[in-house]
Amino acid sequence: MKKAIVLLSGGLDSAAVLYLAKKEGFSCSCLIFDYGQRHKREIESARRIAASAGCRAKVLKIPFPREGSSLLGKQREVPLTRKGKGDIPSTYVPARNIIFLSLALSYAEASGAGTIFIGAHSQDYSGYPDCRPQFYRIFQRLAACGTKSGVEGRGVKIRAPFLNRGKASIIRTGISLGVPFHLSWSCYKGGLRPCGKCESCYFRAKGFKEAGVKDPLDL
Amino acid sequence: MKKAIVLLSGGLDSAAVLYLAKKEGFSCSCLIFDYGQRHKREIESARRIAASAGCRAKVLKIPFPREGSSLLGKQREVPLTRKGKGDIPSTYVPARNIIFLSLALSYAEASGAGTIFIGAHSQDYSGYPDCRPQFYRIFQRLAACGTKSGVEGRGVKIRAPFLNRGKASIIRTGISLGVPFHLSWSCYKGGLRPCGKCESCYFRAKGFKEAGVKDPLDL
Repeated sequence: MKKAIVLLSGGLDSAAVLYLAKKEGFSCSCLIFDYGQRHKREIESARRIAASAGCRAKVLKIPFPREGSSLLGKQREVPLTRKGKGDIPSTYVPARNIIFLSLALSYAEASGAGTIFIGAHSQDYSGYPDCRPQFYRIFQRLAACGTKSGVEGRGVKIRAPFLNRGKASIIRTGISLGVPFHLSWSCYKGGLRPCGKCESCYFRAKGFKEAGVKDPLDL
Repeated sequence: MKKAIVLLSGGLDSAAVLYLAKKEGFSCSCLIFDYGQRHKREIESARRIAASAGCRAKVLKIPFPREGSSLLGKQREVPLTRKGKGDIPSTYVPARNIIFLSLALSYAEASGAGTIFIGAHSQDYSGYPDCRPQFYRIFQRLAACGTKSGVEGRGVKIRAPFLNRGKASIIRTGISLGVPFHLSWSCYKGGLRPCGKCESCYFRAKGFKEAGVKDPLDL
């Protein structure tokens, strides 16, 4: 059975990617990152999503620099809106997806998995540079050049199937795949209920509205 | 004062890079990786080298997959020689330099450092794909494309000044810079004395011999 590493954040997009990979017949191992997020709620959500899909999950604790982002630690406030269109918000985490993909690459090589799935997309998102298509094209080249499997010609393939999709489209795909969106968590803040005000809540609500579906986290 | 992140392994090459960066006037912060090496001796060496240079050092514990390399954990033997010329030995650690550079990039962005120094070189080495010049060229492009600082035009520069140099040449440069080679550690095995048999000991001995200098670790 073909093996894949799936990056799971606890959010909607990576949950949908996991179910897509499973539907394509991959045996999936999930990597979940504990990188100093403001809350552990999304890690718990990611664990539950992996369990619901019947997949192994490993939580990797990674020491990111706390001063790099308003998402790391609780010293800084999470902003509610961006200052201007095109700005990269303070929730940007320096080199986050490079680090996540690099570790996924290491685990893929070590376990003989030929594919890495990531739920990144470049529409209805916060303008992070490491969510853009060109970033994934270069990372794929790096993986081919900088690893044993790449040099030997059986390199690890990076797949970001939602890269050019919007949130509503991902939600519709997820629903058709039976993704347990009630287990997912998008809010930048922790707590029992989503804050409904941060940018991540904004894009989630917009996505469900455009998809014409009720968010199961809305009571 | 211009700031740099220096990757420090405890070995000769990164020690020489640190002293080179200092000579160029950089204020250096060192990153040392505890990634499941067979022994902690090289981490201790790296700490001492940073201290001798009067630089801050941070040890980052990174959960690499243990099954990926004979250098990780003690289940597998470290090979004494390579099977064939051009082979990548079992001491290869999947995606090691990609992960190290990615974390360095994150710390560089978070702390406002404009340069990362790494001691990689592609001569007198073990054939690791992530020590080759083309790998660093692609990583530089990735850093420019996938980070906020890169997108905003003040990207982090990756410098591997010894990339096309051999061990003997690095040793000669190090001696002229006053690098405390007696604090460095190259042997893949731990213990009180270098084994003198592993590939890393082989290249170190060859380098000192060619440089016409006595290795201070030789009694």
